[in-house]
This record gives sequence, structure tokens and C-alpha cells, in this order.
Amino acid sequence: MKIKDTQYRSVKLHPDNDKIIQIVDQRWLPHKFIIADLKSVKDVEMAIKDMWVRGAPLIGATAAWGMYLATFEIPAQCSLQFYFEDIYHRLLKTRPTAVNLKWALDQMMDAVLDNDSIAETQWYAKTRAQFICDGDVEINKKIGEFGLKIIEEIAAKKNNKPVNILTHCNAGWLATVDLGTATSPLYLAHDKGIKIHVWVDETRPRNQGANITAWELLQHEVPHTLIVDNAGGHLMQNGFVDVVIVGTDRTSVRGDVCNKIGTYLKALAAYDNRIPFYVAAPSSSIDFKMRDAFSEIMIEQRNAAEVKYVQGLHNNEIKSVLIAPSETPAINYAFDITPAKYVTGLITERGICQPNEEDILNLFPQKK
Amino acid sequence: MKIKDTQYRSVKLHPDNDKIIQIVDQRWLPHKFIIADLKSVKDVEMAIKDMWVRGAPLIGATAAWGMYLATFEIPAQCSLQFYFEDIYHRLLKTRPTAVNLKWALDQMMDAVLDNDSIAETQWYAKTRAQFICDGDVEINKKIGEFGLKIIEEIAAKKNNKPVNILTHCNAGWLATVDLGTATSPLYLAHDKGIKIHVWVDETRPRNQGANITAWELLQHEVPHTLIVDNAGGHLMQNGFVDVVIVGTDRTSVRGDVCNKIGTYLKALAAYDNRIPFYVAAPSSSIDFKMRDAFSEIMIEQRNAAEVKYVQGLHNNEIKSVLIAPSETPAINYAFDITPAKYVTGLITERGICQPNEEDILNLFPQKK
Repeated sequence: MKIKDTQYRSVKLHPDNDKIIQIVDQRWLPHKFIIADLKSVKDVEMAIKDMWVRGAPLIGATAAWGMYLATFEIPAQCSLQFYFEDIYHRLLKTRPTAVNLKWALDQMMDAVLDNDSIAETQWYAKTRAQFICDGDVEINKKIGEFGLKIIEEIAAKKNNKPVNILTHCNAGWLATVDLGTATSPLYLAHDKGIKIHVWVDETRPRNQGANITAWELLQHEVPHTLIVDNAGGHLMQNGFVDVVIVGTDRTSVRGDVCNKIGTYLKALAAYDNRIPFYVAAPSSSIDFKMRDAFSEIMIEQRNAAEVKYVQGLHNNEIKSVLIAPSETPAINYAFDITPAKYVTGLITERGICQPNEEDILNLFPQKK
Repeated sequence: MKIKDTQYRSVKLHPDNDKIIQIVDQRWLPHKFIIADLKSVKDVEMAIKDMWVRGAPLIGATAAWGMYLATFEIPAQCSLQFYFEDIYHRLLKTRPTAVNLKWALDQMMDAVLDNDSIAETQWYAKTRAQFICDGDVEINKKIGEFGLKIIEEIAAKKNNKPVNILTHCNAGWLATVDLGTATSPLYLAHDKGIKIHVWVDETRPRNQGANITAWELLQHEVPHTLIVDNAGGHLMQNGFVDVVIVGTDRTSVRGDVCNKIGTYLKALAAYDNRIPFYVAAPSSSIDFKMRDAFSEIMIEQRNAAEVKYVQGLHNNEIKSVLIAPSETPAINYAFDITPAKYVTGLITERGICQPNEEDILNLFPQKK
């Protein structure tokens, strides 16, 4: 996507040095736009763990480049199998919930093993990481095209009034390599001249909606309004939301959707008000082996400080303010699971399907 | 309630000067505990409008004292009827949603008119304002006793494990004159030695949960954990919540509950997980004439800056940080309406009733 006429991707190889990966360091958005250089596996681990990058597809893509960087760090006389398995596990544990992470690392393992030379390993790793990135963009474009149809159908009934779309967290281009998943239909609709307006959930505790989604939409000049996470129910009750589109970190083959904490509450409100609730779910985020999301997904707990402190801009400096008594304990679950029955449909790169095993596997028969 | 062994009320007459009203200036909690003096109607208007005090019962009580202060500001040779009607309307419009405000002001109008002298008017106004305050505490005590039974019943089944109670916003003693509405059962249960643990919704945008409820519970040593507003659904899905108890700004005679924005989402989640959802509703917050809350209540919109900025403590100073791009627009609805069908019961000062006209009027037959 463009920022002030310059085309960016959220992760890419440095244009002049192919031992460096460049990312947008998202910790400072929307206040500062910083491109960071990652030069080692350790840098990549830190960038994922400390959320310089976030969003399931982008985590996968960044980890893939981490595995590529590992090809420059191979110790002398070691077992490549052991070495890459170790890297694989180090990178895998940076964020436990994102299924794309495992998916991307599995792809990379396939590329880095059984080559004839280290140079060849490096070449295969680079090619595969690039392929994962380009593939992500291609998939998001397809999700955008299928999602666009949903928006067009609503627009046709709205008599030239904007289609109001609510989204939670950031499943935008900065959560992927480009275009985004949940935002891809929005960008395509906007670019096609369809009037849309986006309700942006701020998405506490880390405010990815306020910090990143709002910033993305602003750069692309998509009309939007920031709301607190509490407001969506009221908006839906009053007819101010036509459709909800969110992303997913992991969706079970039965259609239960693990996504940013608070998604479930919005799904309940959409259901109560008969508003369609769509999940943009690239196949890489679908766990085809997982039937019971509720028992099989361990919901990640992040640092309680994210709840007690809020980061923002004060006098042109980024500061953190304490919003609770310092002695008060807090707990910080990162995700929740929205049961399939509250999901209208999954928007995948192969089309839109019902959130159930039969429909999902009809689109992806090779996963049976 | 007590703060470090000193007994407080959230609003009261100055102990040494009966032309001064003392309030806790809640804008600086939990970081600073400041008692503010209100010396004029203008001070009272500002204190309500700018949320030095908040919470429906406390707003009513403070406005009552505002009407009392007005008795010291009567211009020479004016019509008392016109004068007090003007004060009534000035105070009434400070917060449009709180029904207690009108209720308290109606009581005060009855006290200030048709007296034989200004001294008598002052005496009646003082007595009535004091009566409203004492009455509020008495009502909250009764709500606490009825709510306590709910907690005791759950505790009996929990095998000595704590009863987990989720609350939203602050319907605590600082939202009333003392004890609180939703918190009154919690304080009574805790004081009786029943093990409880409170999940405190931070309650964006103004964070009354993080700022005030957490602080209240901490002072009273009630075990509690702060959560973001997004987390309640996940907690309920996982059996971590036994009961939800919230307050209300206005409840229709049919049992639809207008309360802080986000309440509706918690009610939906409680319903989806078969968790009882109670509303502590003193009769002063029930609008016995209102049948259709959805068409009759104009939901107040507050300043969008409350969404875009978060206030907290940084380096021992209270600061506001911007959490979104400065150009991003925001909207700030203060309340939502929870349909009666999602409410398990209303805890009133006369007992617990179902949220429907027949049951409510059975408890308050004089309102028929």
C-alpha cells in the first residue's frame, strides 16, 4: 500500500543488502513511521515477540525471513537438521497462537534442508520466503475480491449512502505483507469508488485499531471513525453498522474463530441485531486438523502491564501512562474464540464458505 | 466507606461551614485523592458537567445540594418560582441521561417553594438534601442485603472457592453517596467473610472501572483483577465468571436498562454462557413512565477527545496521551441500552424483581 505516494510492504528484503530484512516497526504507529532493519534470527525473534510486527500473516512472513537469515548463521560442523530444527522451535515459540507461523516455518524447513551447499540453501530460503510473501499478497487480493462482492451487494441497497463496516483490531496491510485480510475488501471497494465508512474498534489493550487500522485508513483516505470497544453494540442496535469484517489468528476446521480479544463480543452483538459477521480467513490461518478450538487452543496471556498502562503521544513524545492503582492486579488474555454459529461466513482466497467442516473442506478438498 | 481508617461520603456538607458542599473530585483518582469545595450553583453545575462527580445517584445528590446552595444566591425582588425553575433547568441539563437528577431536583423543588421566609427555605432545602443523601445510603444498604443473598447462594455451591463477580464501570460508593449500588452486595459479602473476587472492566473511554472501581475495592481490600472491556466474553466462556452485577443510569418500567456504554455486550455474553446478569437498580433510577427505552432515551454523546486521549500517571504527574492519528475522527456514545430479555433481575431496595412491567410495579405499586 502507499504512504504519501511511496509504495511499501510491511516486510521485505533490504533493496541493497540481502542479509537485511526491513520491517515497519509498528510499536510507534501512528505517531512515528519507522523502518527497522533485522539482521539476525535474534532480531527477528525480538521483532515478533515484542510486537514490532504483529498480525498472523505478517508474523508468518517475518518468521520465514528469520529462517532465511538463519542460513547466514550456520555454525561450522553442525547437523543442519538439528540446527534448523532449533531455529524452527525458537521462532515458533515467539507467538504461540498464530497458526500461520507454523505454516510458514514448515514451508521454510522444506526449503532449507537437503540442499547441496550452503549457497544453495540460502538461495532456496530466499526464494521460498519471497514466495511466501508474494503468495500472501496474492491471497489477500483474492480475499479482497470475494469480500468486495459482499460490500457491493450491500451498497446496491443503500441508495448511495455509505456502507458502514465495523472492524476489530488490525487485520490490515500492516498485519500481512500487503493489502490486509479484513481490510482488503475495504481497499478494493474504496478504490472502485464505492462509498464506504469504517467503524474502527480501538482494540484494547494494545490499541491496534486506534494506532494502526485508523492510520492505514487515513493514509489511504478511507472515511472512518474511531470508537471504543464498548461502542459497537450500541451502533449495531441503532442500524449504524451494515456488516462486520474481522481477521483471524486461527480458525478451526469447524469454523470456530480465534481472533483478538473482544471479537466474540462483537459477533454476539452482530448476531443479536441480524448483521452479517464475516471473517477474512486465508487458508493459512485455518487449522484443518483442529476440531475443537475451545479445548485445543491455549489462549496466550500477555503482560498485565499492557492493561494497566496506555501508550500514546504527549508533547510530541511517546509516553506510557498508568490508568489504574499501581497495586491493582490485571490479567491480559490476548485472544478469544467466536463460536462458528455466530459467523456468517469465512472469506477465503478460494471464495466464501459457511463456517463448518463440510463447507470449508469443499473449498480446500486437498486438506481432507 | 473508609479510606485509610477515615470514614467518607462522596458528597456532604462541609463540617464547619454550611454554605460549602464537599465532594471527592473523582477526575484525579486513583492517582490523587482530592476533596473539593463547591460554593455556588455554578460550581455544582461544573462539577456534574465535567465529571468531578459521576454516577446517577451521586449526580442526583450533588444537584440537590446545588439547589440548596441556590438558596444563598436568591436575587432581591425576584419571583422565587421563576428563580428556582431556572436553577432547576440549569442543573437538569448538566447530564441529560441520569433520571435520578430529575428525581432529586423534583424533590428539592417541593422543598424550596411555598415557604414563609428565605431562612425557612434554606432550612427546608438543607433538610431535604440531607434526607436525599441519607435515603440514598439506606437504599444502597437494602440493595446490598438483597444482592448479598444472590452471592451467598452461589458461594454455597462453590466449595469455598471465591465467587467471581464481573462489574462494568463504577456503580460503587463513589457513584452514590455511600456503599454504591452494584458494589453494595460485594462490600456486604466481603465484610461478612464470604470469599469473593471481582473482575473490573476498565470501562473505556473514561476508565471509571480502572480508575475508580479498582481504587474503591483496593481501599476496602476486596480481591479484584482489572481487565480490558474486551476480555469479559472470554472469561465467561471459560467459567471464570459466576455472576455479573452492574448499575444503571435509567431503567424503563419494562426493564430495559440504560447504563454505561458496553454494558449491553456483557449482557449478551452472560446470556450466551448462562451466567446470571443482575442490575442494581434503586427505584430512583427506574423511569416508571417510560415504556420504550429505545425510542425515548436520547443517548448522550460526549467529547470525542475522551476516545482519542487517555489520562493516566506518568512520572508522578497526570498526563493525557493521544492514542490515534490526530486527524482520525472519533465518536463517543456514553450509554447503551440492554434489552430486558438479557437481564436476570433488578436488585431494588424493595427486593429482586424480573425486568418486566408487572414485576416492577408489584414492588412499587404506588407508581402504577
